[in-house]
Amino acid sequence: MAELAGTGRRFEVLGIGNAIVDVVANVTDTLVADLGLEKGAMTLVDESRSEELYAKMPPGREVSGGSCGNTIAAVASMGGRAAYIGRVRDDQLGKVFAHDIRAAGVTFESRPGTDGPATARCLVFVTDDAQRTMQTYLGACVELGPDDVDPDMVRDASITYLEGYLWDRPEAKAACRKAADICRDAGTSLSLTLSDAFCVDRWRDEFRELVRNEVDILFANESEILSLYQATGFDEALAQVRADVGLAVLTRGAAGSVIVQGEETFGIAPVAPARVLDTTGAGDLYAAGFLHALSLGHELPVCGQVASKAASIIIAQYGARAEQPLDRLLAEAIG
Amino acid sequence: MAELAGTGRRFEVLGIGNAIVDVVANVTDTLVADLGLEKGAMTLVDESRSEELYAKMPPGREVSGGSCGNTIAAVASMGGRAAYIGRVRDDQLGKVFAHDIRAAGVTFESRPGTDGPATARCLVFVTDDAQRTMQTYLGACVELGPDDVDPDMVRDASITYLEGYLWDRPEAKAACRKAADICRDAGTSLSLTLSDAFCVDRWRDEFRELVRNEVDILFANESEILSLYQATGFDEALAQVRADVGLAVLTRGAAGSVIVQGEETFGIAPVAPARVLDTTGAGDLYAAGFLHALSLGHELPVCGQVASKAASIIIAQYGARAEQPLDRLLAEAIG
Repeated sequence: MAELAGTGRRFEVLGIGNAIVDVVANVTDTLVADLGLEKGAMTLVDESRSEELYAKMPPGREVSGGSCGNTIAAVASMGGRAAYIGRVRDDQLGKVFAHDIRAAGVTFESRPGTDGPATARCLVFVTDDAQRTMQTYLGACVELGPDDVDPDMVRDASITYLEGYLWDRPEAKAACRKAADICRDAGTSLSLTLSDAFCVDRWRDEFRELVRNEVDILFANESEILSLYQATGFDEALAQVRADVGLAVLTRGAAGSVIVQGEETFGIAPVAPARVLDTTGAGDLYAAGFLHALSLGHELPVCGQVASKAASIIIAQYGARAEQPLDRLLAEAIG
Repeated sequence: MAELAGTGRRFEVLGIGNAIVDVVANVTDTLVADLGLEKGAMTLVDESRSEELYAKMPPGREVSGGSCGNTIAAVASMGGRAAYIGRVRDDQLGKVFAHDIRAAGVTFESRPGTDGPATARCLVFVTDDAQRTMQTYLGACVELGPDDVDPDMVRDASITYLEGYLWDRPEAKAACRKAADICRDAGTSLSLTLSDAFCVDRWRDEFRELVRNEVDILFANESEILSLYQATGFDEALAQVRADVGLAVLTRGAAGSVIVQGEETFGIAPVAPARVLDTTGAGDLYAAGFLHALSLGHELPVCGQVASKAASIIIAQYGARAEQPLDRLLAEAIG
């Protein structure tokens, strides 16, 4: 991947994702159970269910979100040249999303919808164990399709990063396929995060084909990679992913992470956070740190250390967008 | 004030205020200076200036706010019976405001506007010293007037609590005058917070008249009380306020607070916060703790201790709405 560094492309990383505003509230386990939520998972809900759940939710905080949006905003905050493609509406929360990602330094040119569903929102129920249970109403995200993918933008990015969540909408999936084709032709790298074990369960065959034939850099947590290969143990999944993809980055929460490239394997120690308040965005910020360091030509273990440091920062706060700029993170992580 | 306890009224505290959603971002002192902001103050801005400043603001977090709304939400979160009167529009941020205050347990029946300006927002620039500089676009708050004040609701509240910020709009001021008249006739208590030293400067004569003739419980911080009396020292202001109002509660930041009732004076030690992240809401939560304890019949020093504890909690987080329920605060504060 060393050829990524200093390629002189306009962007180090271009992300394509569901543009979502998070509504974050602290809740009890009892409420999660009473509402019948799948704890720890991301569940898609329609507008009326979203309204119903919101009415039963404690007071909240609104923060721009979307897994890929979080990653891209963090890459820019770290000083990387980053761009994002995603759809919002021209409503208040759409303006919040656009403001926040641009204010982080990201190039975001997707035009907001002037009619149709409202900007997407994700109700994030944070329990005392810092776990998050997410209920997503996709709203304006359903407008994302191939026409939103500007070929020049993809060709101008060293890495194009997709979130697995996009597979839940046929048009968004088609947008990803288009981006993958452009990457292949342009000789740039395609990266994918598997997003969620239940999402992998819904699209396993397609993800396996994609990982084997298109993806250069794969991100997954333990439950996602086990789900992808229907493996019973981590080592089994590791052997499969090693054969399938050039570079795989597997996160294991407090147990750290593992980077696999060909015959090489790097175990990365976790970075202890100041406190664990809300695990929302841990994987997103890990990916940001990794991609940013990788695009600058750092060795894989260094990329893993930067990634772990970024994850440790985000779980010490609420929400998945860093409260402070991350521009000194790389320098601090590599000492 | 002991007669407040157990009066059997429907509400312990009714608040009337500007219903605002805060947009909170961490900034440098350089940005505050470059934007020409009055550091530490609340400045009213029009919509275009608000948009201009927002465009230059870093990524933010949206949290329901409004000084009085913060106080009332906290009273309810502590377990108090609380109600709120304030105007939002029927837009996304208006729904956020209504959701958050109701989810805290507050009775909020003000109908949202169906046209006119958008829900009010306050851009809160938080600097590294935890100070907040606020730029408020009043938006739909300008719709608040005497018709919004339901006489039954005022009569049903042991204490009606007004924010000085309302004086910046003639119609809102008229709403306050109406509430004050009802309180006097009903024999309930009227409470006022002076809100901001610059606001006091704008309405000094009216506030002095109000404090002398109508207010039963006055809240002010040091700069506000000095501004009210154009006093050069705290002791001078103390002597004046003692003569003017039955019960005055004066906060002095890290130096604690002073409660004055007739000839009696109680110095209240501050409660050390876990950390100081953002002082937004310190005064609002202090007032909440004080009013809640007072309405339950606690002695004034106890009211001050509960108030100080509440303030210490809010400055250890971003924004002025508590991230966790405050239902055990009273019990913990009085040990």
